[in-house]
Amino acid sequence: MNKILLEENEIPRHWYNIQADMPNRPLPPLHPGTKQPIGPEDLAPIFPMGLIKQEVSTEQFIEIPDEVRDIYKLWRPTPMYRAHRLEKLLDTPAKIYYKYEGVSPSGSHKTNTAVAQAYYNKQEGVKKITTETGAGQWGTALSIACNMFDIECEVYMVRISFDQKPYRKAIMNSFNGKVYASPSDRTKAGRDILAQDPNTSGSLGIAISEAIEMAVQDEHTKYALGSVLNHVLMHQTIIGEESLLQMEKAGDFPDIVIAPLGGGSNFAGISFPFLRHNLKDGKKVRCIAVEPASCPKLTKGEFRYDFGDTAGYTPLLPMYTLGHNFRPAAIHAGGLRYHGASVLCSQLLRDGLIEANAIQQLECFEAGITFARTEGIMPAPEATHGIAQAIREANIAKEEGKSKTILFNLCGHGHLDMQAYQDYFDGKLKDHYLTEEDLKSGIKELSDYPAIPN
Amino acid sequence: MNKILLEENEIPRHWYNIQADMPNRPLPPLHPGTKQPIGPEDLAPIFPMGLIKQEVSTEQFIEIPDEVRDIYKLWRPTPMYRAHRLEKLLDTPAKIYYKYEGVSPSGSHKTNTAVAQAYYNKQEGVKKITTETGAGQWGTALSIACNMFDIECEVYMVRISFDQKPYRKAIMNSFNGKVYASPSDRTKAGRDILAQDPNTSGSLGIAISEAIEMAVQDEHTKYALGSVLNHVLMHQTIIGEESLLQMEKAGDFPDIVIAPLGGGSNFAGISFPFLRHNLKDGKKVRCIAVEPASCPKLTKGEFRYDFGDTAGYTPLLPMYTLGHNFRPAAIHAGGLRYHGASVLCSQLLRDGLIEANAIQQLECFEAGITFARTEGIMPAPEATHGIAQAIREANIAKEEGKSKTILFNLCGHGHLDMQAYQDYFDGKLKDHYLTEEDLKSGIKELSDYPAIPN
Repeated sequence: MNKILLEENEIPRHWYNIQADMPNRPLPPLHPGTKQPIGPEDLAPIFPMGLIKQEVSTEQFIEIPDEVRDIYKLWRPTPMYRAHRLEKLLDTPAKIYYKYEGVSPSGSHKTNTAVAQAYYNKQEGVKKITTETGAGQWGTALSIACNMFDIECEVYMVRISFDQKPYRKAIMNSFNGKVYASPSDRTKAGRDILAQDPNTSGSLGIAISEAIEMAVQDEHTKYALGSVLNHVLMHQTIIGEESLLQMEKAGDFPDIVIAPLGGGSNFAGISFPFLRHNLKDGKKVRCIAVEPASCPKLTKGEFRYDFGDTAGYTPLLPMYTLGHNFRPAAIHAGGLRYHGASVLCSQLLRDGLIEANAIQQLECFEAGITFARTEGIMPAPEATHGIAQAIREANIAKEEGKSKTILFNLCGHGHLDMQAYQDYFDGKLKDHYLTEEDLKSGIKELSDYPAIPN
Repeated sequence: MNKILLEENEIPRHWYNIQADMPNRPLPPLHPGTKQPIGPEDLAPIFPMGLIKQEVSTEQFIEIPDEVRDIYKLWRPTPMYRAHRLEKLLDTPAKIYYKYEGVSPSGSHKTNTAVAQAYYNKQEGVKKITTETGAGQWGTALSIACNMFDIECEVYMVRISFDQKPYRKAIMNSFNGKVYASPSDRTKAGRDILAQDPNTSGSLGIAISEAIEMAVQDEHTKYALGSVLNHVLMHQTIIGEESLLQMEKAGDFPDIVIAPLGGGSNFAGISFPFLRHNLKDGKKVRCIAVEPASCPKLTKGEFRYDFGDTAGYTPLLPMYTLGHNFRPAAIHAGGLRYHGASVLCSQLLRDGLIEANAIQQLECFEAGITFARTEGIMPAPEATHGIAQAIREANIAKEEGKSKTILFNLCGHGHLDMQAYQDYFDGKLKDHYLTEEDLKSGIKELSDYPAIPN
């Protein structure tokens, strides 16, 4: 069997909130002025209360509203596949499964939280939502979701992607999303950066600053983030909850669960429900987050308080970070070019409950092409990081002569990223090696913010 | 229920050959020199004998080889959807279903025949296959299929699409396809056209001539066509065979089956199995082929003998045609810019067993956007023609106050066609109205070829 499918009535009815089960709850976010823990009211200018409640909830399961679940039915449950042809090519005793989120309207997992966020904003009468986008997956997802709930959507798209990916603008426009290259002259944050460097290629951190700045100026406008925050990660757990059912249907259970990590929502989405079985039922699934070697916050960053954005508009978050001014190389995996990791993933890594690995760009593209040629799906450049790790694990299984069950999340298709593959074939891409100086420069700037004792 | 899914073991084991059931068998193809019917041996220089046998077979069902069926399992059975959200928007009593072929590795139905053709070529030791492609769907599909069977693939891509769609080249390159803009200087056919008009935007007819010319020069090289021929249409009937099972599962049966028609394989794929029920079981399904108003061979062409390509390398085929020198306007639906219709579809139309309709470009794009915003799938520009017709039928049902069941084939996604949508939003697209002179000019040239009595 290649595909493991679920029926519509098997779509999970709850998201999983790992905060309920963590041995060490994450440290609180701090107000950057007072350095004191923030409360829900501090977040009210930018998020609706429905989402703030989820952000701080310690309930184990949170019910998915019927209206959200009805929209999920357009593409969920998503398929799980056994990668028979890839296994055969690798000549491995490992069994490789992948969950495929590319069937969603935006072509990635991002739609799972976009629909939920648009729903809770609509409930509270919000008229417009602002956001940032890197490669464009999140901006697309939020445009689609806002269109369904008749909310305006304003997207600040990292300049380099805006220029490289005209199809992404077109698809957001198709769903009535308004897209601006970031940094723009619409915000103080944008204008300040442009004054320093008029030719900047932008970054996710800058685009977040612009989107937040626009949201706080208008009471009917809120802001939405596509990863990092607790509620965003929780919405993605529907991926792992479905995967548990599909693994059961396949009569199997993973030894290893793998996903790329940019902010953490893709990784959390597939791994947290399996981690519940580790934490509560004594299972020992290895959950591996894969980051690009050019932006290695998990493997080379420090665990400390930092801002989520470049201008410093967000609360201080306790996370693995390279510093909010770290400028990642212009690799073709825009969704992974972010300086920090979500608070939840950071705490789990610090507690040794998950693993992390960094892989260079060329190995990832090679893995992506190998996957496309065997399994027939062209993966997004972000997704190739998970494939590369899965291939490494399958090769280790071969060396060890052991059968293992590997599951990875194929978070999106690469149809709108074909220029990246063309650049790869044309020999234009290279690996990026960071010096100690590169790594330290961003962290040094954090000396004013509270340190976290070991 | 939104999705009607089948299990892998429900993938049909046979293709349906409508030649067995047609009241009037199609007229034979003629040798252009002798004007006498051609035999299988005339086709042997360009096709493997396995496919030639299928081309002339009158068996009702032809078994799908296990190796082909195993590859089909990568994406088949494809889903069928009930378009609840579109129905609601249209406020129609009609039930609208669509079969979605965009989940295939190439993003369209073309992979169904590409894999079959590559298989039969491999069986006979073919080392290289040449072909043409318009929008790029077929070239992509054949590149993928050839890569799976370790056959070289050489694609002549219509110049205008080659220039407009760099992502298509990239995806073919990803699967080792070699892509040349057509007309090229690699062939006599190409050089002749370039000498007449160095800035020509090319056409499918020209690209076919180039691919055939390359194939006949080498005994280990064959040619593959992505539509028009009987065996190609037959491979696509797996779409309709699955649809019959899915309709049964939904407890419904269509009153109307709709698909776009370029050469005819998409339309044949979904409609022929339903036509079998018309021909054998007294069902009365209306099967409607939809063509662009700018290339209206079914509704404004003549039924007569014509070449399948521009240079006149193919046999003379009895078909509805606008003349092999007809140059369709540069609409953004490259797969429908073809001067003729397949012999089987032409004969069925002549016998009144199917219907045809022509729709202008702007109505199709509007329908595509409406569909994307409600159902969450961005359709290929070709596919929007089927959607536009389905919306017309749903509106008629509303006017009549009748519930009807409408099924259309959503033959592919539009992820690689986003420039077309951007041009639509930017007001750059227009409708094309053909004069009597436009329509007659191509037909006039056919006076030397055998006419067909009414």
